[in-house]
Amino acid sequence: MGKSTIALCIIAFLISLAPFSSSAQDNNYGETTFQARELFETPPRPEGHQDVIELRCEPLDTVRMAVIGLGMRGSQAIERYNHIEGAKIVALCDVVPEKVEQAQQTLLDGGKPKAATYTGEEDWKRICERDDVDLVYVCTHWALHTPIAVYAMEQGKHVAVEVPAALTIDECWQLVNTAERTQRHCMQLENCNYDFFEMATLNMAQQGLFGEIVHCEGAYIHDLRWLNFREEGGYWNMWRLKHLEKEDGNTYPTHGLGPISHLMNIHRGDKMEYLVSMSTGQFGMTEYAKEKFGEDSDYAHRDYKKGDMNTTLIKTHKGKTILIQHDVTSPRPYSRIHLVSGTDGFARKWPEKGIALEPNAHHFLPEEKMDSLLQKYEHPIVKEVGKKAKEVGGHGGMDFTMDYRLIYCLRNGLPLDQDVYDAAEWSSIIQLSRASVENHSMPVKVPDFTRGAWKKVDKVQYYTQ
Amino acid sequence: MGKSTIALCIIAFLISLAPFSSSAQDNNYGETTFQARELFETPPRPEGHQDVIELRCEPLDTVRMAVIGLGMRGSQAIERYNHIEGAKIVALCDVVPEKVEQAQQTLLDGGKPKAATYTGEEDWKRICERDDVDLVYVCTHWALHTPIAVYAMEQGKHVAVEVPAALTIDECWQLVNTAERTQRHCMQLENCNYDFFEMATLNMAQQGLFGEIVHCEGAYIHDLRWLNFREEGGYWNMWRLKHLEKEDGNTYPTHGLGPISHLMNIHRGDKMEYLVSMSTGQFGMTEYAKEKFGEDSDYAHRDYKKGDMNTTLIKTHKGKTILIQHDVTSPRPYSRIHLVSGTDGFARKWPEKGIALEPNAHHFLPEEKMDSLLQKYEHPIVKEVGKKAKEVGGHGGMDFTMDYRLIYCLRNGLPLDQDVYDAAEWSSIIQLSRASVENHSMPVKVPDFTRGAWKKVDKVQYYTQ
Repeated sequence: MGKSTIALCIIAFLISLAPFSSSAQDNNYGETTFQARELFETPPRPEGHQDVIELRCEPLDTVRMAVIGLGMRGSQAIERYNHIEGAKIVALCDVVPEKVEQAQQTLLDGGKPKAATYTGEEDWKRICERDDVDLVYVCTHWALHTPIAVYAMEQGKHVAVEVPAALTIDECWQLVNTAERTQRHCMQLENCNYDFFEMATLNMAQQGLFGEIVHCEGAYIHDLRWLNFREEGGYWNMWRLKHLEKEDGNTYPTHGLGPISHLMNIHRGDKMEYLVSMSTGQFGMTEYAKEKFGEDSDYAHRDYKKGDMNTTLIKTHKGKTILIQHDVTSPRPYSRIHLVSGTDGFARKWPEKGIALEPNAHHFLPEEKMDSLLQKYEHPIVKEVGKKAKEVGGHGGMDFTMDYRLIYCLRNGLPLDQDVYDAAEWSSIIQLSRASVENHSMPVKVPDFTRGAWKKVDKVQYYTQ
Repeated sequence: MGKSTIALCIIAFLISLAPFSSSAQDNNYGETTFQARELFETPPRPEGHQDVIELRCEPLDTVRMAVIGLGMRGSQAIERYNHIEGAKIVALCDVVPEKVEQAQQTLLDGGKPKAATYTGEEDWKRICERDDVDLVYVCTHWALHTPIAVYAMEQGKHVAVEVPAALTIDECWQLVNTAERTQRHCMQLENCNYDFFEMATLNMAQQGLFGEIVHCEGAYIHDLRWLNFREEGGYWNMWRLKHLEKEDGNTYPTHGLGPISHLMNIHRGDKMEYLVSMSTGQFGMTEYAKEKFGEDSDYAHRDYKKGDMNTTLIKTHKGKTILIQHDVTSPRPYSRIHLVSGTDGFARKWPEKGIALEPNAHHFLPEEKMDSLLQKYEHPIVKEVGKKAKEVGGHGGMDFTMDYRLIYCLRNGLPLDQDVYDAAEWSSIIQLSRASVENHSMPVKVPDFTRGAWKKVDKVQYYTQ
């Protein structure tokens, strides 16, 4: 062994000490601060691409739409669009031909012209390629959301895609990169942002009623076992149960997170930094399956990865926290929580509406006072279309309001209420929470999908002319 | 350099690779599972010591008590003990002489004999050394809880100590080790376990109404700024504000955690494994101080470490989860949440009582049905003393029930409802949550204070003869 080899050996040994001592310090509380892990790196923005913060596109006189996926959400959308001015459905697609026929009938009932029909597995591609389509509206099962959205934008279309818009961090980046490259709109159809109470609290927040907002909570707590285990008339091919078999974490985060994120101006001056996530074991599905299908049934013996209750905590750049829960397998009343806690006041929607404001925030406002406050701070958009939205329906009017806004903004060349970064951020919780759950709730960094553009504007705006 | 040196160098290099590769894998999602960190090691049980699970001591005909600390909690206790049979207060101690005088007057008003008086800083030691004391009842500020409790047990006394019983993991072990060595009772005075609704849900849980309990939530949400910033007539020497200046995390976890831990049979067949904790920044205290004392005041410029809202998630051995929150600086209505979610039902106390049971758990029971259910499952102990407890008062009767039970069990030689492991587990959250918060919410192992004895019994029992 020569001298140079020995020297190399010593150098290698010394270098190797560095990670060792860093690792040792991690275990030593007080000596150093453990850092949230960056499990998912942020890819650099490709040369020539631009962010799409507050993207404005050419105004469309009539928004020509294709609706892909005509199950629960898609079929209801057709009914609503019969009542929306300036939108025209030109193509319909579902792998179940009866679903397309029913949708055609809905159009007919609304006095609308017949749309082109597609029923093939890959027909969504052909739809995206049509010259007479401005907007592709995606209501398929989850796994097709991003592939269709990306392909549609690549064909120059705007896209509106059901929740969750993406299932993985990779899919989130596909949406962001494609929207930035094509400069097309990609809106996630988060209807809960248009719930009237949520909109009123957004309006109150923006007018300063809660002071500095410090902590918010949201959830999707909805016992869906009766639907997930339904072999006929439930989800197509029981696709939703399959997710619960394969994946733990928060598999459906956007309904709770969407309204809160806008209240907290996420990627408009603040941003999510890291999260931790914890799941219970799985108890509810097996118990349900035993009762419904018998102790010896296949369903009772399957291994469901999804723990009953998942709780995720998110820390923001400005030091605020967000709590998001997901439970679709426990017997309990529905809740999206929607809790807002600020330095001047407090609001909460579930289990029942309550608002408390300084200097008397120790008590909820009496019902009549809350009602008059909600009326006073009714969101301008609800003032405009709330009455019609309730008549048309769709989760109490929020679905109609969402569609109305989507079409309104496209027709007027305005930024959409929800952009592709919202879609990516809210959907990214699926894989981020799963990664944390699989690692003893380890803190995991949330990618900055805006790649630095989160400071360009300082608050959420729902634009009107 | 000789051959042996070179060999040593190579060996050292190879050994050093091990921690490096382990550290690298931690960053690689999918390759390995990150483990919660054991920041606080479990010391071995000293030779000859025994666990105190279900400890039974000699029955006492009359429980001769010394009460140390006569501020808010202590002075109220004296009033309650005027109504409790078989207890006799023989000594009173507070550093403020007027507090002792007031307590003497309370005894006099209740037709009780005068107690010995102590007002020196170190007098608690002399009280613990008295021959005519069976039970030392500690209501001082937090920092003295463990020192007094330990010293009292060392003098052969039982001890009842206000919440939190301990402020650090080290103090938790002091309590456990001293109780195991002396075989004396150490009960934390967690009054919320005796709230009538909490006790009814405990009874329901034990009778199986909720099925397998999967997830629970508790909290201490109580805007205390008016009290913490009070220079006269608030906490002695403003001790509570000082904690908020120095410490983040959940600084007061037991009121929410106590009732839940008993519902979930913690250290009676299940145990806490690890936790993650996240705090917001501090906003509320500074805002309050500015408003109350002025922008330029000392209070407005102090650095308060305590974030407004802290949320802690705890995972148990059996795969259940517990959510605990702490917020004493945000304007919002009081809440301890007290949420119980199982495979057959659901209950929640705040913002208002609600119970939902299968097969109709999608909706809360109508009020009259809930009331009759609560009556049916009224806890036997509440049936026994609830009426008197309400008359005597003390947080709606729960304080009296707690004192009644403490004296009842001591007089009958029964295990106390809350043992030293409860005291340690619930109090340990203070330092564990702080450690997690200071390390980007890193998962931290919860010590097993029973050192393996958590499987000895399989459920919580409140013993009666």
